[in-house]
Amino acid sequence: MVKDLGQRTADALHSAAVHLLRRARTADTGMDLDGPRASLLSVLVFGGPRPVGALAAIEQVSPPAITKLVTALEADGLVARTRPAGDRRVVLVAATAAGRHRLDQGRAARVRVIADLLSGLAPDDLATLRRAAELIESAVRA
Amino acid sequence: MVKDLGQRTADALHSAAVHLLRRARTADTGMDLDGPRASLLSVLVFGGPRPVGALAAIEQVSPPAITKLVTALEADGLVARTRPAGDRRVVLVAATAAGRHRLDQGRAARVRVIADLLSGLAPDDLATLRRAAELIESAVRA
Repeated sequence: MVKDLGQRTADALHSAAVHLLRRARTADTGMDLDGPRASLLSVLVFGGPRPVGALAAIEQVSPPAITKLVTALEADGLVARTRPAGDRRVVLVAATAAGRHRLDQGRAARVRVIADLLSGLAPDDLATLRRAAELIESAVRA
Repeated sequence: MVKDLGQRTADALHSAAVHLLRRARTADTGMDLDGPRASLLSVLVFGGPRPVGALAAIEQVSPPAITKLVTALEADGLVARTRPAGDRRVVLVAATAAGRHRLDQGRAARVRVIADLLSGLAPDDLATLRRAAELIESAVRA
């Protein structure tokens, strides 16, 4: 029974997360930071500099697609290609200060959309959602 | 205070949803259904046929990018371009039966990844997560 509950819970959570983020992404319109750009920038800001090949694997897109994305973000000054001092043959992609700022703005806008969605909920329900977020973060980190 | 709690809850939920889906997407490797392809197919399967322009808006990518994506999915037999009987000038993109099947497979694989993540949780915690998913779905629908 616990296994069935786990499956049902996983199914419900997956749907809820997809629907929540789809709605939150409506905040991205006009920020010039659509889904793929926001996702890549997020990986670089929170995960640190990465080789282009590693980014293609993380984002699950083809090498040409990731190169195109990196080039577009670089043209906007949001990421930069760098060579680490230890190994000049390696090219890493890193977020710039402007990239971090843009990501913060995008994130704040998406969080505002979600906060609006939650504005009718009772304090108890908000507490349930915060507890759920903690449980998810723990499970993902484990 | 309720407003602050709402903001904090929204912030925590946003992060949890992003991290959960990033982990779940690791199931997509080898399914030839990466993030953008899965997202577009999902919109067509659950939302019904759409003009290409509407899909660009929903997915928040450029018209050339959506056309490329539709063409790739069409080549794989997962979507088809159709003309509705009522207005032959309009071209709609629709999911095929193979597209629905592929999406179901991808979704099942992602749900299995999430179920594995949750396998160590107590029944009470699973109940909290299911309740949270319900609250999120209600808020998104409202």
